[in-house]
Amino acid sequence: MLSRKENTYITEIGPGTPMGNLFRRYWLPALMAEELPEADCPPVRLKLLGEDLVAFRTTSGRPAVLDTWCPHRNANLFWGRNEEDGLRCVYHGWKFDADGACVDMPNEPPRSRFAEKIRQPAYQAVERGGVIWVYMGPPDLSPAIPELEWTLVPPSQRSVSKRIQECNWLQNLEGEVDSSHANFLHAQLGPDRRPVRNDERDEDLHPVFSILETDYGLAICARRDAGTDKYYWRITPFMLPSYTIIPGTYGGSYTFTGAVPRDDTSMIGITATWNLEHDIPQRPFVEVDANYNSLQNKRNDYLIDREAQKTVSFTGIRGVRVQDMAVQEDQRGPISDRTTEHLGASDTGVIATRRRLLAQAQALHKGTEPSQPHDPQAYRLRSMAVVADRSVPWQELMAEHMHIPTTLTMSS
Amino acid sequence: MLSRKENTYITEIGPGTPMGNLFRRYWLPALMAEELPEADCPPVRLKLLGEDLVAFRTTSGRPAVLDTWCPHRNANLFWGRNEEDGLRCVYHGWKFDADGACVDMPNEPPRSRFAEKIRQPAYQAVERGGVIWVYMGPPDLSPAIPELEWTLVPPSQRSVSKRIQECNWLQNLEGEVDSSHANFLHAQLGPDRRPVRNDERDEDLHPVFSILETDYGLAICARRDAGTDKYYWRITPFMLPSYTIIPGTYGGSYTFTGAVPRDDTSMIGITATWNLEHDIPQRPFVEVDANYNSLQNKRNDYLIDREAQKTVSFTGIRGVRVQDMAVQEDQRGPISDRTTEHLGASDTGVIATRRRLLAQAQALHKGTEPSQPHDPQAYRLRSMAVVADRSVPWQELMAEHMHIPTTLTMSS
Amino acid sequence: MLSRKENTYITEIGPGTPMGNLFRRYWLPALMAEELPEADCPPVRLKLLGEDLVAFRTTSGRPAVLDTWCPHRNANLFWGRNEEDGLRCVYHGWKFDADGACVDMPNEPPRSRFAEKIRQPAYQAVERGGVIWVYMGPPDLSPAIPELEWTLVPPSQRSVSKRIQECNWLQNLEGEVDSSHANFLHAQLGPDRRPVRNDERDEDLHPVFSILETDYGLAICARRDAGTDKYYWRITPFMLPSYTIIPGTYGGSYTFTGAVPRDDTSMIGITATWNLEHDIPQRPFVEVDANYNSLQNKRNDYLIDREAQKTVSFTGIRGVRVQDMAVQEDQRGPISDRTTEHLGASDTGVIATRRRLLAQAQALHKGTEPSQPHDPQAYRLRSMAVVADRSVPWQELMAEHMHIPTTLTMSS
Repeated sequence: MLSRKENTYITEIGPGTPMGNLFRRYWLPALMAEELPEADCPPVRLKLLGEDLVAFRTTSGRPAVLDTWCPHRNANLFWGRNEEDGLRCVYHGWKFDADGACVDMPNEPPRSRFAEKIRQPAYQAVERGGVIWVYMGPPDLSPAIPELEWTLVPPSQRSVSKRIQECNWLQNLEGEVDSSHANFLHAQLGPDRRPVRNDERDEDLHPVFSILETDYGLAICARRDAGTDKYYWRITPFMLPSYTIIPGTYGGSYTFTGAVPRDDTSMIGITATWNLEHDIPQRPFVEVDANYNSLQNKRNDYLIDREAQKTVSFTGIRGVRVQDMAVQEDQRGPISDRTTEHLGASDTGVIATRRRLLAQAQALHKGTEPSQPHDPQAYRLRSMAVVADRSVPWQELMAEHMHIPTTLTMSS
Repeated sequence: MLSRKENTYITEIGPGTPMGNLFRRYWLPALMAEELPEADCPPVRLKLLGEDLVAFRTTSGRPAVLDTWCPHRNANLFWGRNEEDGLRCVYHGWKFDADGACVDMPNEPPRSRFAEKIRQPAYQAVERGGVIWVYMGPPDLSPAIPELEWTLVPPSQRSVSKRIQECNWLQNLEGEVDSSHANFLHAQLGPDRRPVRNDERDEDLHPVFSILETDYGLAICARRDAGTDKYYWRITPFMLPSYTIIPGTYGGSYTFTGAVPRDDTSMIGITATWNLEHDIPQRPFVEVDANYNSLQNKRNDYLIDREAQKTVSFTGIRGVRVQDMAVQEDQRGPISDRTTEHLGASDTGVIATRRRLLAQAQALHKGTEPSQPHDPQAYRLRSMAVVADRSVPWQELMAEHMHIPTTLTMSS
Repeated sequence: MLSRKENTYITEIGPGTPMGNLFRRYWLPALMAEELPEADCPPVRLKLLGEDLVAFRTTSGRPAVLDTWCPHRNANLFWGRNEEDGLRCVYHGWKFDADGACVDMPNEPPRSRFAEKIRQPAYQAVERGGVIWVYMGPPDLSPAIPELEWTLVPPSQRSVSKRIQECNWLQNLEGEVDSSHANFLHAQLGPDRRPVRNDERDEDLHPVFSILETDYGLAICARRDAGTDKYYWRITPFMLPSYTIIPGTYGGSYTFTGAVPRDDTSMIGITATWNLEHDIPQRPFVEVDANYNSLQNKRNDYLIDREAQKTVSFTGIRGVRVQDMAVQEDQRGPISDRTTEHLGASDTGVIATRRRLLAQAQALHKGTEPSQPHDPQAYRLRSMAVVADRSVPWQELMAEHMHIPTTLTMSS
């Protein structure tokens, strides 16, 4: 449960908000590389942290992101012409390069120096792992790209997908750091019409949760009894600002989720599954339309099948991600009212994640920059799901299982 | 005409409002029984008095109504599983019974007593007359179900229908207590293209209105001259909080209307026609879709036919109820601005109804509970349309014609 | 650039606003005559200056415009019956004539004098040039209809069309007084994929702008070099409150545009092309649906063709007017935020137009009535596009080329 003030503080991410400032210290995965398929391709709309942006790819192939409103008289640069290393407004022909400089102003007198005074807000953009990442903070604080494993493996060993989710980003993140919901929301039903657990270990529905504060964020540990002398450890890293990793459904595979704020009431969900050893099928987690909106959505009740809910699955809704969307997109509205909650022992991860986010935003507000953005290696992480003797300390297990080898290096 | 303050006072029905409190003292007809067709059927959404609710039927067949937001973390119980006398949230498996007790909390440790502290708002619900009635007030003040005649006759002698109307409830109620509009809005045109009155008596367009304050609300009397020595009396009861009865189009039949607030700008309209002696056709008053929204609606101009308006009917709109909806759904918006009105002699019923509602809400606000909810027999009423000698006092006529026999008893 | 206060002052036109008051001193072209095709035709909805109105044509063929909300109890007169020189409300039969008098009140007692106290707001309406004009100001200040040339020529020599534009009216007017955008927004591409100028003179992309304050508003002059001893003058009149004329694409033809406010975020665009000597094709500037909404619109990205934008035209959007709509309908929203602009030499016309509008609204606010409405001959204007010796003063050229002959007289 949060106070109303805390709930506003933690959810709102527009320009000038404390949490918005925190997000503006990290690289954010925002576009699929395929949205900008080639040099000089048409510009695309992008909404990020409450700002209206336009993305394009220059003649040299570099991704570029500008504020979408022409500084002349507010025409939308989305209608613009992507020409020779710059985007030209169709209203009066002003042209901007990828850094926001006004490089041509053909409607003004030839000797005019007006263009030199014009600078369009431009944000750094980089392609990595099939995704275009954007940094919206102070240029002089620009960090390195986080060395997430899925961005380092060969493209055939990862499957990345994007969806728009119609709720505040925090609702999605809370689902990711809350491993207790999987046994319910995502459960299949057995012949007795009761939920089937994924494996024997999960049958212990009441894990003991503990939290480790880390450089990248948190390690959220769920410890379950496995026989009389062993523990089954399942550890999910929460990486600032809003990234998580869980074990995938294939052996040796993992799934990354980024909950990236578009505005206060919608978000971009980036999901990447990767495998350490072999290729994996390229398929989207959610079936989406050309604008990355889910075909199963709140307007069609996610195509819930009430008969299937009695006999096949806990929700009657097809697709794990869509099941998440069904509960997350309307938790008493698109921004959950956390003053009405009743949190229990199973919410340990949720509570700790909120605390860390609030603390980090408050620290930045008081002048302390977050350290994570400047330590890209801190993001070289996996999630962990191992069985070990009860005597082994979890920190040891983490050191062995959660960190990815340093031999894997940036592929681009 | 009302002041702006009065208009707000009388129209708004959310939690904590004076008029909302008054409505929370009465049983409200809200769902068709067919919406909950069987025990353990899928839950359905219900919006009532500005609250988001979910309705279901338990394993024993009892209708149940809960606040729709799970107290854990605001997931919507509409996605829930209706299982063995309780509704289970799909997010983390919390289960609530029809009284709002949390009867299972499978994601918390086995010996946790957390569930005992959780109580979901639950409202009493009862099926009567093919309709599910809901009581949203203080449980200890729970009244009896009003003994409306249409709920007492055999099902084949009544036809009940439901529609959503996209305006404040009071606009609908005002139409019901205003018998003067029938000669215009609902008129058919004759060969001379002028309105045809329903019968000779109605030809007197200028009835003398008078109002009798009663235990159930008001008796709204329209007295017309019928020849030189008789009067034609037509009396419509307004029953608190928002119910009326008018004579039906069949002999010995009547029509009940309930204008039940969903929120401040939409309402549930329940219409029940019944006959004292024989079966009547089962047909809806308005053609609606699966969500009870009218197929003729403001988005398609109610399919008005301007040619028919010149030659067939006063409005060119098909259906008496749809004619009402066309004028009621947009009286300077979904909440009529009553500060701009100009009321005349024909608005006597409207004025008296508002006064009674305001007085009753103000009395409750000052601590006086309304008496009607606790006198179910007060609702044993019909409307009256009789011709009588001018010498007969109307009170006598009412005693004879408006009260239904006490031999008719509750059928369920 | 405007201050936030100035931006509000100049854009808002509802009842009681300074700019709304200014607009209420002029005749506004609002409906196509074909919308009221015959005497006693069905009434039509009209939104103008933020007011909800209903228009109809009386039995004698006179156009009439009333406030759409019945003064009785706010029913919408749009549902009304257009009968024998008056519009009758369908709710209770009140009937209003074209001047707003309540000429029948059939639901009140026969001897009631209540009707005499009722007066519905009514606005003067006149048909001229195939268009119905409305005057919404103080009746005693009612001006003459402006003697615009397109309203005086035979119908076959003009083509008038109407569209709804989803933005504040000023964004459209600013486009009209800004001749510099034509070389970009409306440019076709040549074989080299670069913009083709319409004629040799336009190749000088950097005209010298100057402004002449006039009785009707402004003459906005763009002077371009034409060889070494001549100037090419192109002069656009801005006529208060929001009308302009530009040279048409045919010889001897011109195009009038009126940007008429519906409310603060939408407008009626009236475009009239006329030719002084011969008939012109009757075709709409924009393809619209039955409600005058553009088929190419913001919801379908104006059917932009990105491939055509590379090879055929500057925007890839079909239609000059639609190109305007694409940039005007979303200049940082439907009301452009003029505090963020960066205006240059090419914005001279835009700046002067705003200044004149602000000055005229402020003057009226202080009690000085505008003179234009009372000088219909001031509107006998064309735009001018001539080449002349550099020694000829522009005022002389204007006197010769911009004023239409007084022999042309009102055709109705």
